Amino acid sequence: MIILLGGSGYVGQAYQSLFAREGLDFRNVARRELDYGNPAALTRFLRETRPSFLINAAGYTGKPNVDACENDKAACLFGNAVLPGNVRAACKATDTPWGHVSSGCIFSGGRPGVDTGWREEDAPNFSFRANHCSFYSGTKALGEEVLAGAETLYLWRLRIPFNEVDGPRNYLSKMLRYSRLLDAANSLSHLDEFCRATWECWQKRVPFGTYNVTNPGQVTTREVVSLLRASGVAPGKEFSFFDDEDEFMAKAAKTPRSNCVLDTSKLQATGIRMTEVHEAIERSLRAWVRETPMVPAGATDALA
Amino acid sequence: MIILLGGSGYVGQAYQSLFAREGLDFRNVARRELDYGNPAALTRFLRETRPSFLINAAGYTGKPNVDACENDKAACLFGNAVLPGNVRAACKATDTPWGHVSSGCIFSGGRPGVDTGWREEDAPNFSFRANHCSFYSGTKALGEEVLAGAETLYLWRLRIPFNEVDGPRNYLSKMLRYSRLLDAANSLSHLDEFCRATWECWQKRVPFGTYNVTNPGQVTTREVVSLLRASGVAPGKEFSFFDDEDEFMAKAAKTPRSNCVLDTSKLQATGIRMTEVHEAIERSLRAWVRETPMVPAGATDALA
Repeated sequence: MIILLGGSGYVGQAYQSLFAREGLDFRNVARRELDYGNPAALTRFLRETRPSFLINAAGYTGKPNVDACENDKAACLFGNAVLPGNVRAACKATDTPWGHVSSGCIFSGGRPGVDTGWREEDAPNFSFRANHCSFYSGTKALGEEVLAGAETLYLWRLRIPFNEVDGPRNYLSKMLRYSRLLDAANSLSHLDEFCRATWECWQKRVPFGTYNVTNPGQVTTREVVSLLRASGVAPGKEFSFFDDEDEFMAKAAKTPRSNCVLDTSKLQATGIRMTEVHEAIERSLRAWVRETPMVPAGATDALA
Repeated sequence: MIILLGGSGYVGQAYQSLFAREGLDFRNVARRELDYGNPAALTRFLRETRPSFLINAAGYTGKPNVDACENDKAACLFGNAVLPGNVRAACKATDTPWGHVSSGCIFSGGRPGVDTGWREEDAPNFSFRANHCSFYSGTKALGEEVLAGAETLYLWRLRIPFNEVDGPRNYLSKMLRYSRLLDAANSLSHLDEFCRATWECWQKRVPFGTYNVTNPGQVTTREVVSLLRASGVAPGKEFSFFDDEDEFMAKAAKTPRSNCVLDTSKLQATGIRMTEVHEAIERSLRAWVRETPMVPAGATDALA
């Protein structure tokens, strides 16, 4: 049996869909039934249920965007850095192998000297330790620090999730809803491919450790706009851009955003495949499912 | 009535002694009777008890020294950065003025260009955000970040506490027990003077905000050794020093130590007095109370 923590979130729901589709025996544990942030309570629960694997998809991301983390720092620190350490302790005490959904947002820019992106063994450069990062990224990087050396752990780095289902957490939807965009090169993760690829890590028993789980390749915001225009999902929608990051920070954001490219060769070397990023975006747009009404054109929120 | 959190710790016990001496109505809340790290539970408790003031002396310091924090990062983060944020939320919800025992260990060295030490408005330079700090100092600096902007809060910075009672948390005792020392200039806090001075902040209703609560002046490790030798509390004890911080780090420490000097003029300007640091050490040594057996001379632990 698989235990899923954080199953009600954007990533957690995708895991639930995957496990249901595959007919797997899993249990989504809600915080109201078990205070799983408490290591003693989680340890007791794992002793009773004896799962074969646990996935921690719980975390604090901030709504509607990462700026919100600046206003609830204690909860953000707890969810992203303390909770993973407590899950680690409970998994260690009960010999439970597990996977943790981390974030690629602990990097910024490209990796100096190479064009393949940041590798798993690189130290985060968008963290409390490295420079002026967002509070969110700082806590996610601290979470990785808290988990360093855990022996039976997959640490999976997600970045800017999207798929074909319109919604407030979907990157493609955000692109359609924000009034102005910031151009930058990024790695992205197709949400359902992320869940499948991470689950394959355990199914195939690839070595424990850290994996960048993003679609191969990189894409700029302007390229995504071209794909959105060509797709016809938002006829007549006009896209405008901030001049640069300074204008973006001055007019639209409270805290810096991570824009970065991750190297995916470690995951690819295991034989686990994900679709090239432009192709994955095109496929999502071809299958686009509109679920929620568009916000008015005058909306002032902005997106990195 | 005053609520005290963390009353069983080294600092908390000194607050209990002070309040008992002064005949004040206070209640030391133990974690086993109230999960005060839970903001909802603490809010309910404060609604019921309606204290006039709350002191948070709870924190995670690491035993026997700060190196231990590197091995229990989740608990350290929770105790030093998440818990203060949760206490803030509960105090705000119940209009409870409060004081938080922070640490001067979020600074390193002297303040560039002046010889009076780091001021309250300076940004920490020994933090996750600034450089390669200890995990302990990183979490204490994050705790201050989590508390930034709290309106009815005293944030009191303690540094390297000592008094006349021999014991494992007392700086003077540590000096006697470690086999080798690192020479550095530091601010120190006489524990009981710290408690009295912080309590005076509330009694005198000085403005809320951050205060460096250390004995005026600065002292080097070698000066402390001279005072120890002159005091006669440890006849025959030989003191030896590491050549420099590199040797100390290579041979004795897992994580860097904060050695720093804090400016105390803000507290002094309120009229709250503390004894000059050399005088405070001399007085403690004159009144020295040996409580626990000395460790063998061959002990290899080391002290910054």
